[in-house]
Amino acid sequence: MTLVVQKFGGTSVADSERIRAVAEHVARTKREGTEVVVVVSAMGKSTDDLIRLAGEVSSAPPPREYDMLVSVGERVSASLLCMALADFDVPAASFTGSQAGIITTTEHTRARIIEIRGDRLREALSQGKVPVVAGFQGMSTDREVTTLGRGASDTTAVALAAALGASLCEIYTDVTGVFSADPRVVPTARRLPRISFDEMLEMSATGGRVLMLRSVEFARRHRVKLHVRSSFTWEPGTVVTEEEPDMEQAVVTAVTHDTSEAKVTVSGVLDRPGVAGRLFRALADRSINVDMIVQNISSHGTTDISFTLPRVDLSTAVDVCGGLAGELGASGVSSDDTIGRVSVVGAGMKSHPGVTASMFETLAAEDINIEMISTSTIRISCVVAEEDVERAVRALHSAFGLEEPTR
Amino acid sequence: MTLVVQKFGGTSVADSERIRAVAEHVARTKREGTEVVVVVSAMGKSTDDLIRLAGEVSSAPPPREYDMLVSVGERVSASLLCMALADFDVPAASFTGSQAGIITTTEHTRARIIEIRGDRLREALSQGKVPVVAGFQGMSTDREVTTLGRGASDTTAVALAAALGASLCEIYTDVTGVFSADPRVVPTARRLPRISFDEMLEMSATGGRVLMLRSVEFARRHRVKLHVRSSFTWEPGTVVTEEEPDMEQAVVTAVTHDTSEAKVTVSGVLDRPGVAGRLFRALADRSINVDMIVQNISSHGTTDISFTLPRVDLSTAVDVCGGLAGELGASGVSSDDTIGRVSVVGAGMKSHPGVTASMFETLAAEDINIEMISTSTIRISCVVAEEDVERAVRALHSAFGLEEPTR
Repeated sequence: MTLVVQKFGGTSVADSERIRAVAEHVARTKREGTEVVVVVSAMGKSTDDLIRLAGEVSSAPPPREYDMLVSVGERVSASLLCMALADFDVPAASFTGSQAGIITTTEHTRARIIEIRGDRLREALSQGKVPVVAGFQGMSTDREVTTLGRGASDTTAVALAAALGASLCEIYTDVTGVFSADPRVVPTARRLPRISFDEMLEMSATGGRVLMLRSVEFARRHRVKLHVRSSFTWEPGTVVTEEEPDMEQAVVTAVTHDTSEAKVTVSGVLDRPGVAGRLFRALADRSINVDMIVQNISSHGTTDISFTLPRVDLSTAVDVCGGLAGELGASGVSSDDTIGRVSVVGAGMKSHPGVTASMFETLAAEDINIEMISTSTIRISCVVAEEDVERAVRALHSAFGLEEPTR
Repeated sequence: MTLVVQKFGGTSVADSERIRAVAEHVARTKREGTEVVVVVSAMGKSTDDLIRLAGEVSSAPPPREYDMLVSVGERVSASLLCMALADFDVPAASFTGSQAGIITTTEHTRARIIEIRGDRLREALSQGKVPVVAGFQGMSTDREVTTLGRGASDTTAVALAAALGASLCEIYTDVTGVFSADPRVVPTARRLPRISFDEMLEMSATGGRVLMLRSVEFARRHRVKLHVRSSFTWEPGTVVTEEEPDMEQAVVTAVTHDTSEAKVTVSGVLDRPGVAGRLFRALADRSINVDMIVQNISSHGTTDISFTLPRVDLSTAVDVCGGLAGELGASGVSSDDTIGRVSVVGAGMKSHPGVTASMFETLAAEDINIEMISTSTIRISCVVAEEDVERAVRALHSAFGLEEPTR
């Protein structure tokens, strides 16, 4: 019998009515002869309420207790879904991360899955039950409750699909799939019926918010086919899968954007070996995740280094750079938190070298200035002023012909 | 070092402010050189919210899932209290029932504690930490999450005190102790500084709502001294302990009342062996907890049997009795859900036979009709009309001289 993992996000189980709708869908899937393992997120914003309480009782909640607290939301939705399934005559059993055998590292609030001991889930399946697993959590090698970071219920689902040998991992959410651009910015954006892991990775990394980067990486590594779809309309969504040799490759598949970053420029840095390493080591030591890095051509023995990073880390980064200015011989540190990044992604780019030129021409025609550029084999990103981002996305979406054909 | 178990009920941890107040008290206790193990209930009415959700998603929630759901409330308050303790520089660690090693029977929603494997708690204590245990729950011998029945956090606390050899189990609540009568009914009711387990048992069984019957039984059996006190004023409350030989025994310690029961009378039953057994077996088979039973003197070979039971079970009981009427030769089944029970409790009663007479005289003087009577060595209960209950309580409280002396 085919086994499918179905993961339902917070909006899909936001209230009792939605939970019953999910139960009905799981019952339907089972009736059609498919074995199902379910993974659920916490209901709606319930985890936010818990985090608010934590902030009220403590100025610095210990991570172990934080995990104990915030992991209850998924447990609530898992047990409620099992109750609803029972009401539809589908035998089910809820499992905490620990009961599901999800063994993690000991780093609270951002543990990583080491191993999945799926015995209890397999036993439940063999008894004809639907196991419903609380997402986002596990048990550490120290037997403590851990969580895997926000949005990590997707990772739980993909990891279970890999461990149990499921043929498919369905990610149910409040959108109907992955789009050629954010439909709020580009009304003519098209749902992509099928994309490759590499494309999905680049999209997740550059602002496509549908799937968390980590879960896509995990799916690619373990070759778990994903299907992103809506729990409101239940229509087919986007299948994320390995690139097939005969797959028709669009040159550009999607345009993504991200306005959560800021830019720092360190000017007049001495252009000699070790200087950049010194700077980025210092930033890494403060846990700052630097994204794009650009270094200008050296002139008169000095150069400028610019990089982007999450806005929340900007003031720390400016402090770090300022502190190192003397050592680096830098003449100044400037920052800009009104930037945005626009990216075009497409597996077909590998064999179509003209995409970069087209992108620059399109932005130039819109009179949009490009501040930084970064590329991979299947992606080109440009940093532009934040106020130009949406216009840039619309122009690129149109220039690469991504509109819905029949609208 | 002395070890004390401190249990905090739902009102004591109702919001973040109350949780911080509890943390401050635990910190104070620890600073005074006492080791502390804490047991917490769920915050305020949070468990009721979960039960409402269960009712919304399912007409008959499976008990296993019900336990998985309702056990999260205590886990939330336990982790929040640990966070607050950290804020007061007290190292603490929360434990679910399962992590605390509370092993139970497999009957979901009303499991009983079989054993406490306190290794992890002892380990936390030896590391100088305050273990904070989620009350009301355990793990069954089948490794499933179980709950111990509503209000059973007291039982968790007493069981832990017994298992860990604590010198005292403090039950913190929203009243300042056990009173000579319900102060809402008798404004002159007096706080009892010290009562025996036997008295507390009789009081709990007859309407004294401060402690659950089961936790008192457990405390008596394991000789765990209890201290019932307020988490709002922190003043000394009522100590419940073994009867000491030299204890000054009041003839009557308290007057309790209960208006949650109903009465059923089966009339004209054949007065022969086995008839009553047949009736009460049938009621027991429907899980109806019969309380008082009175059988009249036989006349003309038949008799009337009356019994009291929880009002919620009344219609089931009437059905059962009606169905058996033919077999029992009964001429009729009547019921009354407007009754109440008034009881006087006192360890000194054993050596003072006049109490029953005084009770009857007091009620007669108030023109209150007694419908049923039941006695133990240290308690006398009378069933009266519900509308007479509060008047009866006040009259008895006064007649037995229980008023606060200096008010």
